[in-house]
Parts: sequence; C-alpha cells; structure tokens
Amino acid sequence: MSKEITSRQQDYAQWYNDLVIKGDLADYSAVRGCMVIKPYGFTLWENMRDQLDRMFKETGHTNAYFPLFIPKSFLSKEAAHVEGFAKECAVVTHYRLKNDPDGGGIVVDPEAKLEEELIVRPTSETIIWNTYKDWIQSYRDLPLLINQWANVVRWEMRTRLFLRTAEFLWQEGHTAHATSEEAVAEAEQMLHVYADFVENWMALPVIRGVKTESERFAGAVNTYCIEALMQDGKALQAGTSHFLGQNFAKAFDVRFSDKDNQLDYVWATSWGVSTRLIGGLVMAHSDDDGLVLPPRIAPLQVVIVPIYKGPEQKAVIDVKVKEIADQCKKAGIRVKYDNSDHARPGWKFAEYEMKGVPVRIAIGPRDLENGVAEVARRDTKEKKSMPLDNITAAIAALLEEIQQNLFDKALAFRDAHVTQVDSWDEFEKTLDEKAGFVSAHWDGTGETEEAIKDKTKATIRCIPLQNKQEEGVCILTGKPSRQRVLFARAY
Amino acid sequence: MSKEITSRQQDYAQWYNDLVIKGDLADYSAVRGCMVIKPYGFTLWENMRDQLDRMFKETGHTNAYFPLFIPKSFLSKEAAHVEGFAKECAVVTHYRLKNDPDGGGIVVDPEAKLEEELIVRPTSETIIWNTYKDWIQSYRDLPLLINQWANVVRWEMRTRLFLRTAEFLWQEGHTAHATSEEAVAEAEQMLHVYADFVENWMALPVIRGVKTESERFAGAVNTYCIEALMQDGKALQAGTSHFLGQNFAKAFDVRFSDKDNQLDYVWATSWGVSTRLIGGLVMAHSDDDGLVLPPRIAPLQVVIVPIYKGPEQKAVIDVKVKEIADQCKKAGIRVKYDNSDHARPGWKFAEYEMKGVPVRIAIGPRDLENGVAEVARRDTKEKKSMPLDNITAAIAALLEEIQQNLFDKALAFRDAHVTQVDSWDEFEKTLDEKAGFVSAHWDGTGETEEAIKDKTKATIRCIPLQNKQEEGVCILTGKPSRQRVLFARAY
Repeated sequence: MSKEITSRQQDYAQWYNDLVIKGDLADYSAVRGCMVIKPYGFTLWENMRDQLDRMFKETGHTNAYFPLFIPKSFLSKEAAHVEGFAKECAVVTHYRLKNDPDGGGIVVDPEAKLEEELIVRPTSETIIWNTYKDWIQSYRDLPLLINQWANVVRWEMRTRLFLRTAEFLWQEGHTAHATSEEAVAEAEQMLHVYADFVENWMALPVIRGVKTESERFAGAVNTYCIEALMQDGKALQAGTSHFLGQNFAKAFDVRFSDKDNQLDYVWATSWGVSTRLIGGLVMAHSDDDGLVLPPRIAPLQVVIVPIYKGPEQKAVIDVKVKEIADQCKKAGIRVKYDNSDHARPGWKFAEYEMKGVPVRIAIGPRDLENGVAEVARRDTKEKKSMPLDNITAAIAALLEEIQQNLFDKALAFRDAHVTQVDSWDEFEKTLDEKAGFVSAHWDGTGETEEAIKDKTKATIRCIPLQNKQEEGVCILTGKPSRQRVLFARAY
Repeated sequence: MSKEITSRQQDYAQWYNDLVIKGDLADYSAVRGCMVIKPYGFTLWENMRDQLDRMFKETGHTNAYFPLFIPKSFLSKEAAHVEGFAKECAVVTHYRLKNDPDGGGIVVDPEAKLEEELIVRPTSETIIWNTYKDWIQSYRDLPLLINQWANVVRWEMRTRLFLRTAEFLWQEGHTAHATSEEAVAEAEQMLHVYADFVENWMALPVIRGVKTESERFAGAVNTYCIEALMQDGKALQAGTSHFLGQNFAKAFDVRFSDKDNQLDYVWATSWGVSTRLIGGLVMAHSDDDGLVLPPRIAPLQVVIVPIYKGPEQKAVIDVKVKEIADQCKKAGIRVKYDNSDHARPGWKFAEYEMKGVPVRIAIGPRDLENGVAEVARRDTKEKKSMPLDNITAAIAALLEEIQQNLFDKALAFRDAHVTQVDSWDEFEKTLDEKAGFVSAHWDGTGETEEAIKDKTKATIRCIPLQNKQEEGVCILTGKPSRQRVLFARAY
C-alpha cells in the first residue's frame, strides 16, 4: 500500500495528491474544479467544524443562513469588493430547462432568462449587509455577532484538492458594531480564536500578523491573518479576519442611532476559515507512508487489529478487545476494532498508516496470555508493549503525547525556517536553498512589494503582530525601513 | 406585541407568515424565493439537525459532501428523474463577469460561456451515483451508507417561508446495497427514523405510508412517506424515503461483483427531510399569541424575567437567578436570564410568548422572600408558584410534561380528523367542512386519482403501512377496491 505513494523528495505536489486521494479524504468530481469530500475526509472536517463552532459560540456568536445567490448589482456596490470577487464566478442566467424541440435532449429554455443574473456567492458580505440594513436601527441592535457555515464558489482556473477548489466549504463570520474600536477588537479576537484552534487542535504553529495593503481582502480596511509553514518551506494562509471599517455599511446604507440619537454608519468585521485548512494539515504533518493526523481531530484515534490463526483464536481475542474498545469509547476515545477477515494484518497496518490513525494496537494470542498488547504510534513509528490492565488511561495519555509531539515537531521545523536576511543576494539564496519565512526590511511601498514578487514569486505573508520596530534598509531598494516583514513563497 | 399577529381564524396563511417573521425564525431576502434563516430559527434547525445526525450515525451512516453543481447531461440519464427535476432549476451558463466596455457596470462576459451548462443541485442522485461508480466494485464495498447535509435549489414559482422556498437546507441519504431486500429494509428503516424524530422530538404525530405511483419521487420504485396534519386540517408531507431499485445504478452503470463473482447492478435508496419541517412545526403547535415550540428542540427552553423596582432590588434578584440559571445549565437546560432594562416585564412576557419559549419564570422581591417563583407554561398558559428549592428538577420534569402534552394534543387533533367515508357526497362534504385526512376506497388507477384531485384539490397522501385489506367500492367510480387510502388537501 505505502509503496504507491510518491515520496516528498520525488514530487512534493504528487505526494500531496496521493495522500488526499489514497488516504480517502477527497476525490476529483465530474464537475471541473469541484471535489467530493469522502466520508473519512468529511468526518475530519466535522471534527474541525464542531470545535470551531464551539469556540464561536463561546465568544458569543450564533449561526444563521443567508441565500446562496447574490444579485449581480449587489457586487458592484462596494468598489474594491467587486474588483476582487466579481471576475471569476459562477453566473446563473436562466431558471428553466426544456426538451429541445429539435430532439437534441434537454436544453436551456431561452424564455426563462433572469432579469438580473445571480452570482453563486464567492463570499457573503454584500447579501448579508443588505439584510443587516433591516435588522439594525439602534445601538440596542448591536453588536450583531453572526456566523454562517456554507459552501462558496470561486471559479479558479488551476485547482488542487482542498487547497484551491471552485467550490469549498467554509464559515464566514459577519459582525456589526457601534464603534470602530469594538470592531477592531472583534477582528483581533477572532484571529486569536483561529490561532488557538489551528495550534491546539491541528497541532500547527502559526504566525499572527496583518496583511499589507495589496494582500488585503477586497473591501477591508485591515486584514489580520495566521500563516503556517508547510514541509516544503512554503507558507499557507490558514485564516483571515478583516476589519471592514464602514465600507459595507456605506455601500448598503446601514446606519444606527446611538445613545444620543445620532445616526452613524455601522462598523463591520468578517472572518473565515475553510476546507483549505485540511490541505495545510495534510502537508504539515504527513510523511512518505501516508497521512499523520493530530489525535484531537482525527476521525479515528485508535485502531485495534487482531493477530490470529483460525476462528478459535479470533473468538478469544474478539471478547477481550470488545471489552477494551468499550472502555475506550466510554472514555471518549474514537476507536475501531478491525476484525474483518478479508485482509491480512500487514495490509491493515499499511492501510491505517496511510490514513494517519494516531495509535494502532495489535493483539495476538500470546499477548493475551501475557496480558499485553503491541501499541504503535503513527507519528514516530515507535512500537512498545503495554499492559492491558488500565490500557485506556495509557492510550488517552499517549494520544495527548502525540498531539503535543506533532506540534513541537512542526514548531521546531517552523522556527528553523525563519531566516533573517539583510541583502538581496541573501534573500534570493535563502528562498531558493532553504525556503521558509524570510524576515527582511522592506520600504513599505506596493511597488517594491510587487517587484519582489515578480523577481522571486515571494510575497509578504504578514507584518507580525507586535512587530519589533528597528531601523534598516529595504533589501531591494535600499530605502529606509522601520521594521522587518515576513516574506515567503506561498500556497 | 401579540396584537400584531393575525389570528388563525382571520387568515391562516397570514398567521403563519406573521409567526415566522415576528417569531424571528426567518425573513424574505433580496433574492426571489430565497429566505434568510435568522439566528433564532437557525438554532432551532441546528437542534433538529444535530438530533437527526445522531440518529443517522447510530444507524451506521456517515456524512460526505458532493458538488453543488450537476452537469446538465447527468440529469438526462434517468428518464423519470429528468422529467421531475430538470424543469425548474437554476442554470449556470457562464463563469466570469467583466466591466462593460460601454460603461454599463459589470456584465456577463460572453467569452466565458461554459461548454456544458451546470445545474444547481435540486437533489443529488445523479452526481452521487456517477461518483459511486468509482467507489463500488465488489460486494465488499457494500453497503455504502452515506448522508449529505446540503443546500438545494428548486425554482418554485410560488414560495412560502420554510414550506416552499427556491433554496432550502436539507439532508439527503444515498445508500447502495447488494440486494433488493436490503435496500427495501434500509428505506423502511429510515422512514421509521424520521417518524421517531418527528414524533418524539417535534411532538408531531405522523402516519407512515407509501405514495401512489403518481406521487412517487422521480426515479423511485417505491416512495415511503410520513404525513402530518396541520391545525387547518391540511396535510404536510414531513419526510420521504425512496427505494430506487436499480434505476440509478443502470443509468450510471454501477455494477458490483457478488460473492460468486457475478456482476449485478447495485440497489439504491435515498431519503430526505428539509427545513420544510420547521414550517410544519410552526403550523402544528402554535397559537394566536405566537410560536409554541417543543422543549426538546426549542432554542431556549426557559427564560427567567426579573420583576423589580430600582437597581437594589434587581441586584438581589440577579444573584439568586444566576445561581438558578447555573444549576439549569449544568442540568443541560437551555436557559436565558433576561435582565436587560430597556424593556418592561410585560413586553418581555409577550416577546417570549411570541418566540414560543416553553417555560417562563418570573421572580420578584416578594417571591424571593417566600422562596418561590412564578412559573408559566407556554403551551397551556397555566401559571403556578413553585418553590425555589430544587426548582431545577421541577423545571426538567415540567419540560418533559410540556413535550408530552404537545404530542398528545396534536395526536388527539389528528385522530379527531381522520374520517372514514363511503360516498362521494360524504367525501366532498368532509373535505370542505371538517378537513383532515379522509379514509376512502379508491379503484387504484391514476386516472381516478387525477380526477379526484381535479374536482377537490385533495390528493392521496398515502397508503398506510400495514393497511387493512377490505372489500369496498371506489368513491368516485364505484369500481371494486381492496383497501382504503388517505386523502387530504395538502401543503
């Protein structure tokens, strides 16, 4: 089984694709750019989604649902927004099919043309702010703290499973506030919620920062982001949180009367993470034998495989293992006992390795006699014999240890891949030979940013929060700079 | 507040609309036929969805996700299916907008026309069975038990919030089996899961049955359904489960090799319930003062309103109520303490009555002195004084009592509205004067069914499961009949 995966060294992009498809996470569909998320991959997403949802609710948000379609004219109302989103999108122009009178099967009915085209939402600021107009009159209606779990569509030309697909699943928070300060605090709070989730549940360290003007969300005043590092040294934007100022309130005329009965436009934020996170998860932890999934979000945390000859041995093992599995389930551990007999243990081992199940337990007749089991970790591939007595507690502890180890390993890798450089030569050399984040001075202009991108394909991933202020000169132009920013090539 | 609701007597349809909008469940959107599900309504849906999801998982199903778009040609592959679904649908024809060269804003880019139009899914059998083709080779791959939570679009000409909207949320189960018997058993199992959910969680009694040929799902061999009765005597189809035979397997060439290595087409089911259930819930239990929600799925089960004069009294009540609210939360009760001071108690009472919160507790200084609280039930409007000692257990019991009472009341109403008739005159008279289900003999032909529908607007809701077999004559044609069926006017 594991032989079928392309190694990272050989072809990193192909390795990634192999993992996603052979690890049973997702597959291509018959519709260009759209993927099918398979049961195993979807359970992973459910675990991520449920935890994020809990965190959103703990911070006072509730879910709602807004229409899939956005009238074309809505997109034009916020000037920057239309530039960013109206270009590549799915456009609904008709509402009926009919039998071709000339016998050519079913065709679009030309008489069923919509007066105004509808866009399948690429993001929902416009339809939501058009709705908020009816919901907000007074400061008493604020803050409005709403999140939506939804599918969105962006007609990407080059797609990759999870990382960039025409349709993807995400959540988009859309909040409304009485003051600028409150909206900024909300945008920052959600950035920290994302960082907390990605670090503590996905075991993936992130750098928190703000985007430069050119990398901002279309319509935002300020875009906060978390940036993670993949094993090939490329960065991945894992989540963004936007302070939108009064841009959308002005575009949709959403005003409120404050305590002194003065009318003002409402302040806004929006923030989102998507199924793209799964792409980052795969690339951050996995190895040449398959997926490596952090226990806290793994669909399966433990798999138990019996080693036996003949039905009698199997029956004895079955009894004991069902007891262990029941104990594990009671302790909240997601466990599967795979005693199917159409595959040998070796095949099963490879299969669950491929799928990244954190802990594998093998039990044979001799183990039973000795009151032990063989426990293998997916992350380090270490195996050890463990006593069956109290094995549930030992497994729970091991799962936590694996979770921590994955984070520590990813953090060590990330920290080893932040390189401070002070010249253009060093900059180019680091990008090509070592990759990762490159910390360098930049003169603060969009032109320089663009020029660096053209020359190296590296972009400014972010200006870290609480960034150290220091005198320096721009690596490209030699102009004065007051702080370093983080460059990287990115997904 | 309650004065603003149209009464049932006055205008039932308007009463329903008032409840949905003023009860904060949903609202119209700027997109024709699409609704916005508001936070309160969405929390209700989440409670319903989460329970259904648990029931699906307990019966061995897992979730997955398939594309929003269906290539036009897929719809044509199953002949009956295309007749049923291809007609009124949202058609994506282009994938790009551009700035109008003549300055007319943004327009569809004629150069970005899709080679094949994409249909926004009205249901997903076709795209899913096209995918199953790759997933199923052997009997070992079966059964495949998958569910999807998704948004779907059917371009309805006349829409009503929740009951019939262009876009709605639903779940669709799609399973694949090695034998016809197994698929039939699955379709029946899911019908019973739906009935269990609707009766025990939504407090709404249903009749389980099968549809006549003309009312079958487009592409099904047999459609099972649950039918509920609304307060105006109209029936509402609350859920359907379809045995699809080998129709979709043949349309998409999905074959498997059985244990004897023989190739055969796979057997299928599909089953779904949607946000339409919320419409049924509203119409079944509510009254002229607002929504009445069953405790098990109510977003809020208990609201506590303080009665006070001045901040000192309030402070004392706050302390005691927070203690009670904490106890309730620990016991898993969804409780809100509304001590906001921009509304008087009377206004709050009306507001929570409108929203259908099952239990309202009012506490004033004298109650505190006496160690009691005033507890009001939303369903019967009864109020009584309850001791604060151990009030959590008393409330938990009361919530169960309310749940049961709602079901009993709806069941009594339903049972009083199943009328057995044996002549055409009786049939018409019953439909007009009493409404509800009418149990009558029918000659079994589609022509007669159609004629009855044309004359009375009543349809055959179902042939009940385990229907009594008896000799009789058709109420319309006088031809022989072996069983009664249930007619009703329906939503």
